[in-house]
Amino acid sequence: MTDPTAQTRTVPARTLPVPSTVSPQMAKIIARPPTAPTAPRTAQEWKTVVRAAADREAEPIAAAIRQFAVTVEPVRIAGIPCFTITPANVSARNAHRVLLHLHGGAYVFAPGRSGTLEGIVMAGFSGMKVISVDYRMPPDHPFPAAMDDAVAVWKELTRREKPANMAVFGSSTGGGMTLALVQSAQKLRLALPAAIAPGTPWSDLTNTGDSYFTNEGVDNGLVSYEPLLSAAARLYANGVALKDPRLSPVYGNFKGFPPAILTTGTRDLFLSNTVRVHRKLREAGVDSRLEVYEGQSHGQYLADPTAPESKEAFEDIATFFDAHLGT
Amino acid sequence: MTDPTAQTRTVPARTLPVPSTVSPQMAKIIARPPTAPTAPRTAQEWKTVVRAAADREAEPIAAAIRQFAVTVEPVRIAGIPCFTITPANVSARNAHRVLLHLHGGAYVFAPGRSGTLEGIVMAGFSGMKVISVDYRMPPDHPFPAAMDDAVAVWKELTRREKPANMAVFGSSTGGGMTLALVQSAQKLRLALPAAIAPGTPWSDLTNTGDSYFTNEGVDNGLVSYEPLLSAAARLYANGVALKDPRLSPVYGNFKGFPPAILTTGTRDLFLSNTVRVHRKLREAGVDSRLEVYEGQSHGQYLADPTAPESKEAFEDIATFFDAHLGT
Repeated sequence: MTDPTAQTRTVPARTLPVPSTVSPQMAKIIARPPTAPTAPRTAQEWKTVVRAAADREAEPIAAAIRQFAVTVEPVRIAGIPCFTITPANVSARNAHRVLLHLHGGAYVFAPGRSGTLEGIVMAGFSGMKVISVDYRMPPDHPFPAAMDDAVAVWKELTRREKPANMAVFGSSTGGGMTLALVQSAQKLRLALPAAIAPGTPWSDLTNTGDSYFTNEGVDNGLVSYEPLLSAAARLYANGVALKDPRLSPVYGNFKGFPPAILTTGTRDLFLSNTVRVHRKLREAGVDSRLEVYEGQSHGQYLADPTAPESKEAFEDIATFFDAHLGT
Repeated sequence: MTDPTAQTRTVPARTLPVPSTVSPQMAKIIARPPTAPTAPRTAQEWKTVVRAAADREAEPIAAAIRQFAVTVEPVRIAGIPCFTITPANVSARNAHRVLLHLHGGAYVFAPGRSGTLEGIVMAGFSGMKVISVDYRMPPDHPFPAAMDDAVAVWKELTRREKPANMAVFGSSTGGGMTLALVQSAQKLRLALPAAIAPGTPWSDLTNTGDSYFTNEGVDNGLVSYEPLLSAAARLYANGVALKDPRLSPVYGNFKGFPPAILTTGTRDLFLSNTVRVHRKLREAGVDSRLEVYEGQSHGQYLADPTAPESKEAFEDIATFFDAHLGT
């Protein structure tokens, strides 16, 4: 008997049109040619590319602050640097609600303010206060620094507000950290948030899962696992096994998780990372919703906060939080 | 300003491993090489291939009847030939519940008993009675015969049981017909079912939607829109515009729809057909759930009813029906 997983097959080259089934803003994003990523080789090279990427975020973040009229202020919580993102008008219903944001960036990108875009967009669409954690990252601070920081902030927040009034969210690495945070909180017997929204979570740091292959080169943002994601995973793990559930939470426990809403796109390299977590949550009896957006590659619901698809994605999550959070 | 949808890009040939993230049964199904489909050219050629395909269903259907210990009996409802599929044990809770099944097969395949497999599997996993409609099909009976039959049966069923105790389901063409049935019922001011489960619905009979391209040749069942699906669409439409909402319900109205659960797979040629409907339902404020299965091509949750993924998919739908149907 042959092992079917030892078999492979070749899909011929194909021409992909930009779909006509998305908004004009999203069509522009989907039309972008994929850029073959490269991987830095030294700590200094990492720092250089991270700095350059962070600088490119300044303008989109300034635009989002204007679009949503939120304020962003640095703050320390449990000694960890964070940003408090406050909507222009917080309703009485939202007065005691807090959303904890864990930014994306392959555990190495998006330090400081450059990691706040998603928090700003969420605060804008939800009308809820967001705390975005500027967690430590490699090359200076590999695993478990990022998770230690996220857990420390969560622990402190549970002393300030009712956990039933709080949710945790984030995309990509932030989605994986959201899952790992709940699993850590369970082990530490901390209170759990009332809901979570892991967006296209990096739930498996190895290239395990179908869409790592089916959407290779189809996803025009992440493009492929090699060489950048692979290098970032190893940089973060610092020798710890990549399938350790603390790094790849899809291999962890999902029993007792709070209600979850997961977001991805049909072209997302992390479609399987998202779908696999959704199935695990459903198997564990958790109220989990899956939202998949037409034509979108990894995290493109955040690529243009003025696109109708961004409004749709973030309002869906905000509605979900509103239904599950106490007041 | 260039129209982004006029742009295309080429994805190079790729090697797809069979994912290790599915059950051994599902891995076998995913490992099947895709068969380049051909399209019959004459009515006689259509009848020959339809007959051959129907004959191949006899053994899987017999096996499913044994697996689930259901009985399958021909019956006429409103003059339309149907099959009543009755579970071995119908609980008191399910005594007055009926699930209306519309089979798949590109509007031309799966006549008579050969269309009952999904109804049998659903009756087995849900413990609910299923009525499977043997609706008329081309080449002898093109549009609107199939929908006329489906609507006539639904209308008669609403006289026999409370609509609040009934759901409608089906995959592929049966999923598209499920959506079109609700839209027809709304126009005719008939009562609506309490829930629907359109599986990977053929919601757009044109090759509009991203996954018609991204999953071309990746889906090892449907493989591609040309030439077979395209030919079947034209055979059924018989000159009516393929984007007429009665043929492509994604272009119809979704306001007032009952709660829906949609099922698809990451490799499904109809991933976009499913996702687009889910988004329309959500935009219309409908309680719609989307379930996407790892590595599956079109309708493969039905490819081996003994696979754990089949149990998972059908039990998820059964749980959804149980939550929404009256007793």
